[in-house]
Amino acid sequence: MATAKKSPKKKSTRPIILVTNDDGITAPGIRALVATMKKFGDVIVVAPDSPQSAMGHAITISKPLRLDKVSVFEGVDSWQCSGTPVDCVKLAVNQILHRKPDLCVSGINHGSNSSINVIYSGTMSAAMEGAIEGIPSIGFSLLNFSLEADFGPSMKIIEKVVKNVLKIGIQEGTLLNVNIPNLPTSKIKGIKICRQANAKWKEDFDERHDPHGRKYFWLTGKFVNFDTGKDTDEWALENGYASVVPVQFDFTAHHAIAHLNTVKWND
Amino acid sequence: MATAKKSPKKKSTRPIILVTNDDGITAPGIRALVATMKKFGDVIVVAPDSPQSAMGHAITISKPLRLDKVSVFEGVDSWQCSGTPVDCVKLAVNQILHRKPDLCVSGINHGSNSSINVIYSGTMSAAMEGAIEGIPSIGFSLLNFSLEADFGPSMKIIEKVVKNVLKIGIQEGTLLNVNIPNLPTSKIKGIKICRQANAKWKEDFDERHDPHGRKYFWLTGKFVNFDTGKDTDEWALENGYASVVPVQFDFTAHHAIAHLNTVKWND
Repeated sequence: MATAKKSPKKKSTRPIILVTNDDGITAPGIRALVATMKKFGDVIVVAPDSPQSAMGHAITISKPLRLDKVSVFEGVDSWQCSGTPVDCVKLAVNQILHRKPDLCVSGINHGSNSSINVIYSGTMSAAMEGAIEGIPSIGFSLLNFSLEADFGPSMKIIEKVVKNVLKIGIQEGTLLNVNIPNLPTSKIKGIKICRQANAKWKEDFDERHDPHGRKYFWLTGKFVNFDTGKDTDEWALENGYASVVPVQFDFTAHHAIAHLNTVKWND
Repeated sequence: MATAKKSPKKKSTRPIILVTNDDGITAPGIRALVATMKKFGDVIVVAPDSPQSAMGHAITISKPLRLDKVSVFEGVDSWQCSGTPVDCVKLAVNQILHRKPDLCVSGINHGSNSSINVIYSGTMSAAMEGAIEGIPSIGFSLLNFSLEADFGPSMKIIEKVVKNVLKIGIQEGTLLNVNIPNLPTSKIKGIKICRQANAKWKEDFDERHDPHGRKYFWLTGKFVNFDTGKDTDEWALENGYASVVPVQFDFTAHHAIAHLNTVKWND
């Protein structure tokens, strides 16, 4: 049962760091992230009770949410939530902390959230919700889907990123999307500030029939990168760098306003 | 059962218009949108079989998708899908049309998708997926949640918007977010090209106990607009205009790159 009325840490002067993810509270990736974050502050975890990959910025409005205190990480107050990653951030701020944490980190995602994946990603949507709440927020992802992935090299990159963020902050209205190549530390060339590559998924539905003869589809697809720029996250990752993309939640295509105003809309 | 192998219209030279939504295929809003779109081209509908509000850019990867041909709109080939609005667009392009439609419209949503709502909205995510696919795409929303809302004035605004879009197109990498005030036609002052207002939802969870004494939460909230700009969608809507915001799926905060490069990331 959630003891949602108490703020878990009251007297510490260390930063309060909210950790969440989309792979669920038992995923190895969040375990690695919690271990890293404990070096920087007092960690609390609010994460989904089941995998929520590809949930995008979904929130739960048509059914009630459960929030239960659980013992998953040593010395860290943790809650599991029946909702989406975005729900987790909202519940953490509003029902558990009753204040903004000093930092919100999401991940480490099992799999890439580079380029267009930022749009579908529950990991990144949780970080974006943190940013909307006015919290410095970062999403971390490792380019390896396996549950047996080695998160050691990622932890070193994350330490560097968090140190720098604590130094210079994150500009208002933005968050960071950090992707880490699936390489041993010795092979990672460094960290690169990038822009989101222009890429997409080309769908390829796997059509099957159930035992009753009724058709169903599995969504699969192939990632296609149209972007040859060397300033993109895809380029960085393909060339052995961890990519850091500043992301914003003002989705306005400001450059397109003039074009739209070339016609008279009220004739 | 989906007859997903046939393209529904073969010989027409009229534009093919894909209609979807997030309120589900039986919602009054999509009925009004289909009726309006029939004036402009050959319409096909692929929409969720149940309400999918606030699903954001979620896609269905951990369970199979159903796609069933249904008779809902007179003279219009229609399919209902068990997945999210984004799934609907992917299935329409890949499994039904086997080509890009000439236009993708989503809505009419029952309720606002202005400012920050664009991020949570299934309606807008469907339109965004259309734009990612390279299809000129528009999301339409009426500022009235009621199932009994009068969509008549919206239909007139939508006609104007679509006429102009067919004239000047939509810039690559962008889509349009159109919100319509809940007013009679005589009170709507016109259409305004806008930017997304800087606003957010302030959460307010409704805490309850189930019959077994276990706690649960309903997500509720209050919309807070921090933005006093007269060039925002919120200003337009409050002042009797329909708002048109060009939206992009490059989420990079390009202006933040220089700030991030003020530290050395690889020391």
